[in-house]
Order: sequence, then structure tokens, then C-alpha cells
Amino acid sequence: MEWKTAGLDDLPVYDKLVKLARNPFDLTAPGAMSPRRIASYKASAAGFDLLFSTQRVDDAVLHGLQQLADQSGAVDQFLDMKRGAVMNRIEGYESENRQVLHTACRDIFHEPPYNDGATQQAKKQLADLEVFLAQLDRGEVVNAEGKTFTDYINIGIGGSDLGPRALYLALSAYAQKNRRVHFISNVDPDDAAAVLQNLDLGRTLVGVVSKSGSTLETLTNEEIIRAAYARADLKPRDHFVAITGQGSPMDNPEKYLRSFHMYDYIGGRYSATSMVGGVMLGFGLGYAAFIDILRGANEMDRAAEERDIRKNPALLLALLGIWNHNFLGCETVAVLPYSQALLRFPAHLQQCDMESNGKSVTRNGERVSISTGPIVWGEPGTNGQHAFYQLLHQGTSIVPTEFIGFRKSQHEMDLEVKGTTSQQKLVANMLAQALALAAGQKDTNPNRFFAGNRPSSVLLADKLTPYAMGGLLALYEAKIVLQGFIWNINSFDQEGVQLGKVLANRFLNHMTIVDQGGVQDRSRHPGSWAMLEAAAIFKEDRRV
Amino acid sequence: MEWKTAGLDDLPVYDKLVKLARNPFDLTAPGAMSPRRIASYKASAAGFDLLFSTQRVDDAVLHGLQQLADQSGAVDQFLDMKRGAVMNRIEGYESENRQVLHTACRDIFHEPPYNDGATQQAKKQLADLEVFLAQLDRGEVVNAEGKTFTDYINIGIGGSDLGPRALYLALSAYAQKNRRVHFISNVDPDDAAAVLQNLDLGRTLVGVVSKSGSTLETLTNEEIIRAAYARADLKPRDHFVAITGQGSPMDNPEKYLRSFHMYDYIGGRYSATSMVGGVMLGFGLGYAAFIDILRGANEMDRAAEERDIRKNPALLLALLGIWNHNFLGCETVAVLPYSQALLRFPAHLQQCDMESNGKSVTRNGERVSISTGPIVWGEPGTNGQHAFYQLLHQGTSIVPTEFIGFRKSQHEMDLEVKGTTSQQKLVANMLAQALALAAGQKDTNPNRFFAGNRPSSVLLADKLTPYAMGGLLALYEAKIVLQGFIWNINSFDQEGVQLGKVLANRFLNHMTIVDQGGVQDRSRHPGSWAMLEAAAIFKEDRRV
Repeated sequence: MEWKTAGLDDLPVYDKLVKLARNPFDLTAPGAMSPRRIASYKASAAGFDLLFSTQRVDDAVLHGLQQLADQSGAVDQFLDMKRGAVMNRIEGYESENRQVLHTACRDIFHEPPYNDGATQQAKKQLADLEVFLAQLDRGEVVNAEGKTFTDYINIGIGGSDLGPRALYLALSAYAQKNRRVHFISNVDPDDAAAVLQNLDLGRTLVGVVSKSGSTLETLTNEEIIRAAYARADLKPRDHFVAITGQGSPMDNPEKYLRSFHMYDYIGGRYSATSMVGGVMLGFGLGYAAFIDILRGANEMDRAAEERDIRKNPALLLALLGIWNHNFLGCETVAVLPYSQALLRFPAHLQQCDMESNGKSVTRNGERVSISTGPIVWGEPGTNGQHAFYQLLHQGTSIVPTEFIGFRKSQHEMDLEVKGTTSQQKLVANMLAQALALAAGQKDTNPNRFFAGNRPSSVLLADKLTPYAMGGLLALYEAKIVLQGFIWNINSFDQEGVQLGKVLANRFLNHMTIVDQGGVQDRSRHPGSWAMLEAAAIFKEDRRV
Repeated sequence: MEWKTAGLDDLPVYDKLVKLARNPFDLTAPGAMSPRRIASYKASAAGFDLLFSTQRVDDAVLHGLQQLADQSGAVDQFLDMKRGAVMNRIEGYESENRQVLHTACRDIFHEPPYNDGATQQAKKQLADLEVFLAQLDRGEVVNAEGKTFTDYINIGIGGSDLGPRALYLALSAYAQKNRRVHFISNVDPDDAAAVLQNLDLGRTLVGVVSKSGSTLETLTNEEIIRAAYARADLKPRDHFVAITGQGSPMDNPEKYLRSFHMYDYIGGRYSATSMVGGVMLGFGLGYAAFIDILRGANEMDRAAEERDIRKNPALLLALLGIWNHNFLGCETVAVLPYSQALLRFPAHLQQCDMESNGKSVTRNGERVSISTGPIVWGEPGTNGQHAFYQLLHQGTSIVPTEFIGFRKSQHEMDLEVKGTTSQQKLVANMLAQALALAAGQKDTNPNRFFAGNRPSSVLLADKLTPYAMGGLLALYEAKIVLQGFIWNINSFDQEGVQLGKVLANRFLNHMTIVDQGGVQDRSRHPGSWAMLEAAAIFKEDRRV
């Protein structure tokens, strides 16, 4: 390893960046948005252009950010991660102590791979998947009546749902004929009930996704769907597919038609390109489309190794995020895709980013002295323009924005209205927003005054294909881990979700007892009895 | 009027609250979450309990917040609004200068109404809707082949989409048999294309929603759908319904089967209970269900007049929000419904809140001296628990949280797994999260330490019925306007969305010219040509 774990504020360049942040580039100054600036503030890789002339940076800041990348050893750490270093750990304390190898899932196009063991495991799963999908296509794997499968229910939560769902929705324009995919994730029984309406269970496959084989929400939903199969007099064994860790309680050929494996070196939120996304996407879009997703992701994974930040969109996006968050003091970041198909991509990024980098201790177990991960949120434009953009333009908070757009539509079913196509309107609106946020507008009516200097980036590609989707996913995965490396935090664990889980289970145990005989008189505190009970349990068991 | 427009920091109680905020209530102290506190920190109305023991408030702070409500005249302003005062204005400057009467849409159950004129208009529209829906039900209004309508496409954007869509999804468990509703909002042509797949246009009604009759995205999507009707050899006049302002370009019986009217005293983001939501919800859920929504909303509108903050959930939620935002310094608020049906409710609130209160000038046209509207975001639990909750528990930002839950499920198709039902698990998880965020947990492993003192509220009702949905919607509408009154801003205009619109149109005009002969050589700056062009236009036309 050529890098040491050091906090952002321990690096030599930190003070310089703090000083530069006192007078950040003024995007509202006359001539600030020069054609030269717009043309040259651009970083490209794997089919994506990152346009960043609307960020509050100049050449001096970019030089400082390059130093930040170099001094933190971000790229070296990224390479070590890909090679199989144990990056998921907290030095000196009990921790997950694992490798981080989601990149190995798509490292199948070049020899030698970065980590041979993980890539071989990925290739084995892909080969099994290819066989299974071909059997489905050729009608060799069919239901009890000999009919092919037309529908697929994905049961999973968190990383087993958000990433795969975002990708499927993004690419449903390329769905195979007569194939539909549905999702159940919430423990809310209405979620499962809504999916079961209007579904022919006899022609449906059910993919159950849980690495541990013991995720409560997922097992509960699986039971609900198994009960529906029983009521319909169908054998679940003919319909259910497990996507789980090798040897988990779910890795059981007596209960599942097939098992596909995931490994402990891939965290849930980074698992969309493993079998977690693969089985469902392969069923819905076809095997070739899934391989295209992997090809795009691999291309971006390789581009993210580039040391020159001007040639590495993932690294530059990470650094611009740190500039806005740690030096300009912005608490959130909005991801605004100008593509309806990317409807759920912000929700995936919200998980991937906030679960990775919403941390308060360093990799040495010390309390961090700087802000870590921002709050990530967003919705597709142009809808957002008719909604929360008011605050982006004129609110008292500054929200750095990441726009995502494409030059062509997916369906290419477009219509010219008033001289331009809808796709042209979409891109025009996106670029106009970036410029309006940056440059602002003076007006004698104070209510029509726009202060400007609200930073944004634009990610632009030709068309949202499977390849582009893979690239976009990998770009953000790389952005997130590179930021974590620079903040010196462990972006790969999630201890913060444990306490709520433990409390919920204690509470449920208590509820079971109450149901069986009544420990407390609920009627005394109508409305808040449940909270009272929860508090009582909490008090008893709390470790202090 | 008994109130004057004064900023939050001009009110006598402001300094007192600043002082109290230096030592906010410590939720992690031993015994802090006492049963007495949990039971008594509760405000109830219209079927909802607001549980707020997990907020960082004590009796002194609550007393201060009561004074804040009194001194700002928030409730008096709310009453004036309902009676028809011109609340949508900026004193001394050109502004929309309109009444704000969304509450009149549901003020149909008590005599006399607060504003007779607006309520009479609402009743007239409702009567027309009831007749139209009955004609559809009885097969008196049918397609050219004499068949009934089974599907409905809602074309609208912003307030004409988010609120209505959130309500329909929330209540689709109560959808009428053989009735389905679809939505198109984005100018992205793939949005319309995706809806058109698998739809029988011959049995579909199309509701086009635009107050002005000139919203570009909506007109473009209407043209796309009209073209699809033309291709299918169907007459749009037999299928298209207009929901628009009286006398707008869309108020045209030659083009539409029916017209329903909306009025300039109802802003888009507050229009879900007007005909904007009414026609679609009436088609999908039935007229009686829509009236139930109005009944719940009206009940909450009346409850929001209560001057005692301990008896007024909307007012208390507004004040707790201001406490967290302006006094404890939290920039965002998360809305986390433990109900999958409320999937899109946070997106509606995001618009309603951020477009209303993301402002920087007072109602007197002065620059505000305090922070106004927060950034609002959220996703349903329990999904979020497997995603971004890591940051809520252990991140370096504090995110105040508003949980929403129900004691019963909608479908009541539930299954006991491990001794409890899914609905019990759902509620248990929600309460456990509120307590975990508040109380935290000590641990010798720094990575398993939870600092606690992360504030939240829980909104709890029995079941997500149409009545409850109406109440919940009105509760948040009232919360938002009450906050705006206290911040002394105009929560009813949206000047901040204008600049982007103007720029996009200039850019589109320019694109048309480029397409017709080439003003610029695109190949010189591949990737950023569009931005260059946008900048060039921007520079020429910018008002300085």
C-alpha cells in the first residue's frame, strides 16, 4: 500500500482549500461563463461527459483538488480495493473485516482480472445464469402445466431491491416481449397484496434475495407469497429461485428451483451487478443486455483509475462533492435525472451514498473531525422544475445539483411540437437550469431576483442503453467509495442500522406477550400505548 | 386583521427561544423518556395522534412555541386565509395578488362556509362531476363502440400530477373494479411511450390538467396522446376531458368531452382536493370516496384553527419544524411513512413545502434575515431502514424525522410470521426507530456508538382510508402555510421557477434556428456544444 489512513483535515492541501473557499469562483460575474470555460471544464469517460463549468471552481481550486486526490491516495486505495485488500474494517475494533469486490462481478472482459478468485466466482454464477435463462427461453424449464414463465417477482429489501429495481425501471424500454418484473420489498402487507392483484402465479417465477438468508422483511414477504401459492394449489419449489450466500439457510435445493450465490465481499448496496440484479435483469431484459450492463460498468471501473482528475469523471465528481460539502458548507446534494426511466435511480444513490458515508468514526475508530456523507435526494426533471426547484433557485439553503441527461430518447417515439422534439425540450431544460442556478438574474422586483452561484454538474451521454446504465451505476459507486477514502471512513459497513433492528425485535417479542394475555392496559393511553410499551422495553434492556 | 407582518426574529419570544436552544432537552439522559412524557406529549385531531415525546422539547420550550404561535398571529392568518384575504402578495411590488382558498374546496359540510363564493363554485363543480361519473357508471357516456371506459390517463405536471398521483397510489386499495388510472407528466417522451404500451385507448379517458391551458410539458404530452388516438382512428373529442381555468384556451367544448374548472385562488400544489384531483380520483375510486377525502380534509382544516398548540397537530408540527430548523439548525426534514401506499406522498410534500417556503424575501419585499423552508425528502419505511437510515443514526448531519404510521393495514391480508403480523412489525419498527434515534446507545466499540438526540415525531392513525388521507393531506397543507405565516413569507407564489423556464424557451428557439441552417459548428465542442449555445443565448439576453 502506498497510502496511509489520514483524515481530510490532516492532509497538507486542506488549509489551502479552506483559504480558496473564502472566495470561490463567482459564476454571476460578467463573462464568467465564457465559451472557453464551458468547453474546457469537461471530463469524459465510458460514454459520459461530466460538464462542470457551473461549479464554483477555477484552475487554482482544480489544482488543489488534484493535490487532494494525490495526497489522499484515493486512486491507490481504489486499486487496492479492486485487487482484494480488506477495506471493510475498523482498525483496532471488532468489525466486518472483509474484502470489497463488487468490481470483480464485471471484471470479466480483460485478462488477467484484478482479483482472480472473485472473478472466477462471478463467471461461474454467470455461466449458471446463462444456462438457466436459455432453459427458460427454450421452454425447457416450465411450470407444472408445461407453460413458460412470463412474470417475475423480486423479493428483497435495501440493496436487494433499490439498485436492481432502479436498473430494471431504467431499462424497461428494452424488456423482452412477454416478460414483466414486479417488486416486493416493504414489510407492509399492502405491498405484497398490491403485487398479487392481477398476477397469474402459475406463470410467475419468484426470486428471493437475501445474503444471510435471514432478512426478516424478505422472509416475511416470502411466506406471504408462498401462502398465496399454496392457496392456488401450486408448488413453490417449481417457482422459487434463491439468490443468497453459499450455505445460507436459503441455499436449499429442496425449497428452490435454483440457487444463485452472492459473496460476503459484496455489500448489499453495491450488489446490483452481482446475481442480486443479474437473475431478475436477465429474466426481464435478456442475458445479453445484462452483459452489456456489466461491460459499461467495467469500462467505468477502469476509467476511475485515471490519476488526472480532468480525465476521471468519477474522481472529479467525488472531489467536487467534497469541495461543495466540506469547503463551501452545503449539507445536501440533489441528483436530478432528466430521464423518466431513471425515476428510482436517486433512491438507489440515496441508499448507496448515505449508507456508505453517513459515518462518524474514522477507519482508526476515532471520531471524525470533518463532515462526512451528505444527504442525497432527488427526483426526475422536468417534473422537479414544477415542484421543489423554487427552493433550489430562491431558498435560503444552497443545494449542489447533479443533473443527468441523454441526447436521445430510449423509445425514439417522439413528436415535434412548436419546432422542437420532446427530447430537445428535455435537454434544453436541463442545461437552462444549470445556467440559471449558476448565473442568477438581477431584477428591481426583489421577489424576481436570483442570487445565482448555486453550483451544479451535468452528466451527459448519448442514450440510456444497458451499457450506459452500467457506466452510470459504476460512476456513482466509484464516486462514493473515493469520497469515503478521502474522508478516511469505512464506506462498507452499516452498524448504524443495527440499533433500530434490535429494538424492533424486542418490541415485537413484547407485543407477542401482550397479545397473549395483556401485560399493560392499552386503553389507559389510547394512541400512545405502543410507544409506551416500546419505551418500557427500551428502558429495561438499554446498555449504559 | 389582528396580526401584522413581522419576521420570526422580530417577535418578542425569539430571543427566549434562542436561549432555550442552547440547552435543548436531552433525550439520552436516564429517565428522559418517561412513561408520563410519552403519554402526555401527544396532540390529537381528525383521527391522527401526533406523538412528539422524541422531540428535543420540554414544557418551557412548548410554552415558548405557544407564545410564538400567539405573537405571530399564525392562527388568525390561517382564518383570514380561509375567509378570502389576499394572502398571495408582496407588499409594494408586482405580485400575483390573489386569494388563497384551497380550503374552500372541502368546506362543503358546514353552514355557513368561510368563503361563500369559492364554496359555491366548488359545489357546482362537484355536482357536475357527480353527474358525469354517474353517466360513466350507468353506461350513458361511452365510447364510439358503445363500450364503457376502464382506464384513465392523467396528463399534468407539478401540482397537477404529484398530489393527485400520491393520493391515487395511497388509496388504490379502494379502486373501483375494472378501473385503472395512469399518469404522464414528464416532457421525456419515454414517459408517454411507457404508458401507451399495453393500453386500450378505445376504452380510455384522458384528463388534461392545466390551469392556464398553456403548460408546455402538458400540452406536448397531450399532443403525443392525441396523435396516438389519431393513429388508432379514434376521435379525441370522445375521450378527452379538460381540467382547466374557466375561459382558458383549453376550456373548449369542441375539443373536450367535458370541462371541469379550477380557479386562480388555488395554487397548483394545493389543488389535489379541487377538480385537479377530483375528476381522476372520482373515476378511479368513486365519487363517495372522493367526498370522504374532502370530509377528512375539512375536519383537519377546522382542527387547525385551535389556538392551543397541544390540541392542534398541524400547528404543533409547524412549530416543532421551526424549532428544529431555526433554533437547532437542522437544514432538512425527512418524511418517512411506514406505509407502502404512501410511496409518493413525500414527493408531493417535497413540492408543496419547498415550492411554498423556499423563499428569500418577506411579504414586504425585504431580504429574510432567518432561514426559511427546509429541504424535504423521504421514502417509505421499512425500506429506508435498509438504506439511508445509517446516516440518520450515525451521520454527521442531524435530520429531524416525521414518521407516519397506521395501526391497521388497508388490504387486511396479513400473515403471522414468528408470532406477529406484518402490520405489527411495521408499527414496531417505526416506534423502535423513533426511540433509537432519540435515546441512542453507548458502546465501547466506537463504531457501535449511537449519539442519540436525533429528534422525530410520529403521526399515527387507525387506517389509511380516504377520510384519513384527506386529513393527512390537509394537516401538511396547514403545517406549511402556518410556517410561512410565521416566517413572514409568501407561501403561495413561485417566482423562482420562472428563470429556468425563460432560459429553456430561449434555448429551444435557438435550437430551432440551428436545426434549420446551423448557426454554430457543433463538432467543434462535442459534448458541450449545447451548453455553449445555451450560454451564448443567455449572455445576450441577460438583464443586468
